[in-house]
Amino acid sequence: MSFPTGPAVSRPRVLVANRGEIAVRVVTACRRLEFEPVVAVSAADVDSLAARLADRVVRLGPAQASRSYLRPELIAQAALQTGCDIVHPGYGFLSEKVELAELLEREGIAFAGPRSQTLREVGDKAAARRMAVATGVPVAPASEVDDPASARVAAAEIGYPVLLKAVHGGGGRGIHRVDGPDDLARLVDVAAAEARAAFADGALYLEKFYGSGRHVEVQIFGDGEGGVLILGDRDCSVQRRHQKLIEECPAPGLSEATRALLHDSARRLAEHLRYRGAGTCEFLVDAASPHDPATVVFLEMNARIQVEHPVTEEAFGIDLVAAQLLLAAGRPHGLPEVPPVPPAHVVECRLTAEDPWHDFRPSPGRITRLDLPRGPGVRVDTHVYESYLFPPYYDSLLAKVIVRGHDRAAAVAGALAAVDAIRVDGVATCADVHRVVLAHPDFRAGGVTTGWLAGVWPPASDTAVHDDFPRPPADQEPRDTAGAPA
Amino acid sequence: MSFPTGPAVSRPRVLVANRGEIAVRVVTACRRLEFEPVVAVSAADVDSLAARLADRVVRLGPAQASRSYLRPELIAQAALQTGCDIVHPGYGFLSEKVELAELLEREGIAFAGPRSQTLREVGDKAAARRMAVATGVPVAPASEVDDPASARVAAAEIGYPVLLKAVHGGGGRGIHRVDGPDDLARLVDVAAAEARAAFADGALYLEKFYGSGRHVEVQIFGDGEGGVLILGDRDCSVQRRHQKLIEECPAPGLSEATRALLHDSARRLAEHLRYRGAGTCEFLVDAASPHDPATVVFLEMNARIQVEHPVTEEAFGIDLVAAQLLLAAGRPHGLPEVPPVPPAHVVECRLTAEDPWHDFRPSPGRITRLDLPRGPGVRVDTHVYESYLFPPYYDSLLAKVIVRGHDRAAAVAGALAAVDAIRVDGVATCADVHRVVLAHPDFRAGGVTTGWLAGVWPPASDTAVHDDFPRPPADQEPRDTAGAPA
Repeated sequence: MSFPTGPAVSRPRVLVANRGEIAVRVVTACRRLEFEPVVAVSAADVDSLAARLADRVVRLGPAQASRSYLRPELIAQAALQTGCDIVHPGYGFLSEKVELAELLEREGIAFAGPRSQTLREVGDKAAARRMAVATGVPVAPASEVDDPASARVAAAEIGYPVLLKAVHGGGGRGIHRVDGPDDLARLVDVAAAEARAAFADGALYLEKFYGSGRHVEVQIFGDGEGGVLILGDRDCSVQRRHQKLIEECPAPGLSEATRALLHDSARRLAEHLRYRGAGTCEFLVDAASPHDPATVVFLEMNARIQVEHPVTEEAFGIDLVAAQLLLAAGRPHGLPEVPPVPPAHVVECRLTAEDPWHDFRPSPGRITRLDLPRGPGVRVDTHVYESYLFPPYYDSLLAKVIVRGHDRAAAVAGALAAVDAIRVDGVATCADVHRVVLAHPDFRAGGVTTGWLAGVWPPASDTAVHDDFPRPPADQEPRDTAGAPA
Repeated sequence: MSFPTGPAVSRPRVLVANRGEIAVRVVTACRRLEFEPVVAVSAADVDSLAARLADRVVRLGPAQASRSYLRPELIAQAALQTGCDIVHPGYGFLSEKVELAELLEREGIAFAGPRSQTLREVGDKAAARRMAVATGVPVAPASEVDDPASARVAAAEIGYPVLLKAVHGGGGRGIHRVDGPDDLARLVDVAAAEARAAFADGALYLEKFYGSGRHVEVQIFGDGEGGVLILGDRDCSVQRRHQKLIEECPAPGLSEATRALLHDSARRLAEHLRYRGAGTCEFLVDAASPHDPATVVFLEMNARIQVEHPVTEEAFGIDLVAAQLLLAAGRPHGLPEVPPVPPAHVVECRLTAEDPWHDFRPSPGRITRLDLPRGPGVRVDTHVYESYLFPPYYDSLLAKVIVRGHDRAAAVAGALAAVDAIRVDGVATCADVHRVVLAHPDFRAGGVTTGWLAGVWPPASDTAVHDDFPRPPADQEPRDTAGAPA
């Protein structure tokens, strides 16, 4: 494997174009590499932990992301103003935005992500699908949507239920399940409006929905010249409304043949793209027959570092963010070849500032107590601290609790012990959901589907509970997700 | 590799026969395995973190270790009383005590360590040396000491300087350097008295002292039936008076030939012993020529888990303590084969409750503030918490700060950032020493000798310091290690 020539300055300066825990993650990686981190902040994040850990802070604009973190021209300007050699976009926000990558390419600033051309190819989900077909990667039946009428024809052909997805979407947002023709026209309008608002493009496509699907993804890392490393897989099936809640590495219960198909498919796509940097290929695997590679379909490629990257790092003992920065700096990325299955099992619980007893409503506010777990095999990535004012403007991720065990049972038991040690006052958290999931026999057996959590949380009010089972706070009654009192 | 038959009960009960951070470590491993941890405590540790995390606590005796943690018969009795299937001895205390292993063997309780026979063979350092010679492992010139007169003859033959060591010693205690015949008789008496007090046996031996020696050790794990895993190496040369302060995995700057000799030697010794469980083979490597395998000599085998085991765990992504417990439970230990060099580099800093500006005098007391680092690639193993009363009875280890990087420079930079984030009030800590070492060009270059730290700390009062360089607290003047004001 060879490496592209980058700025190769002795002490590269890095603009961290993100916030929250991933900004802390990137700053920390910069510190280890002895690169100079500069953190771009909105008005709400001037005193953030990432800002305090950085060498320098640059203001982007007001708190609203649409006027700060989501503006490519402000990021490019900040990088130029501060003399940065590299921009790291984190995940979400502009991490897969063609416009930012192009602006930076034009200015000669390295982007810690794929080339703009790659972002264009994989960001159009319909085009990515065609690429998969062309490279022999299995895909689900799907169709682009022009209008409600054509959608109706396509959905009938594919067979209900189907998922309506934004062509330029990502992060699980703007996805709607459609069970029959009656809802279709309305949901096409809703989804298109959402997609326009979130992704500045209302284009949609329809995809076959598999009720028994597991979300399994493969971590890739490319040198941009055709060299590709496959760095294991992750299962991210514990989801609430398409938002991942728990992830693990490796994905449990796959046959060697299924795993080989997943890894080979990811490799084919990455090699075809001459992929540069960290990325993920997402697949659906039938939970009923995870041993049968014929049940695998490719969903999409995420051309960024992902929220759940630490499970891969802890399982293999590698540093993906350092590798991104090194590659962007024109140096060897330092990642080794790894076996298909890591020597350890790792579970990550996303702790959000949401109230799971009230339909996961966001719970911003001042954190007055913060006890997070630590110790052997435990890593916590977070940007919050005691007295931190959790702002209402952004996503609700408060901390990632990552626990390693010598096998899956050990990692799950360790994660449960770690979650039990969490004490947060001032904001609500979803810790109770993690306790229920981590103790649940279905989850312990491995291989739950993406729809599974909806049947488990909120717990039915007549559930036989043991003493340790989470109950709603005494002054609050649980509601189901539809908002009706239980 | 096959596995011995052990108790194989469905939920083994484990007596944790130790205290401090290693007791927390073992309890945590039990939790992950869904084993039942029972913690044996002295009167000083009734409210310890390990005790609070355990299923059950059993009192051994008063605070003094000689009347609690160091009494094999009390440990065996506690295990019997509480119906434990396994005893985990941690490190230090009785971890290598033949008498405890024998008592447990007699009672049919599994010992999470080697057989008593192995402890006898490696615990006698002179016998271990003979075994090394017999298996073709290189050793340093050495001689057993009968009395001052014979010592004088032997030392003259070996050549000064020599080290006086206790035959049944360990943990770096009771070692004296002797530079010439004038000091010899006196130091033989001192060392013998110390050895009698610490190890209940005054037997001594003399060993050639290498001024430019590095302490490099190899982690082994045996299944007790001749199957042996070699799990990389560690450099532990940053020492103060033979006490390790900073450890790293892998050892930097070794040639493939030197590393192969170290690993092969460890394998030969472990196979010869049909070694069971976790152990370490310690070697001396000449810092001036670490590429030349001819400069390697075997020092001793430590038949226990070591303080510094986490650097190996984080470098390879494995769980050594879980493996010990699984093996003791008669189950597969779950450790994989690993390459000689891990995919990451890991540094551990031992944070002790000692005042390095006053000759490292112990600093027990109530901890009134405790900010320890966390985040990506950072693991902290500790038993202390805010408001904890650090007792004066035991060793002064307060926390182990373990930092992983994609390479050595990244791990060292990360460790420095982590140490910089430490804030402890109520007791003094040695954090300043770590800051000086981690920033020092010699240490950054890799491969310092065991004598190196003595020339670096305490810093000379006329050292040109930059703003960040540690200075003694304003109301205290630094003293050199001899106690004279600087």
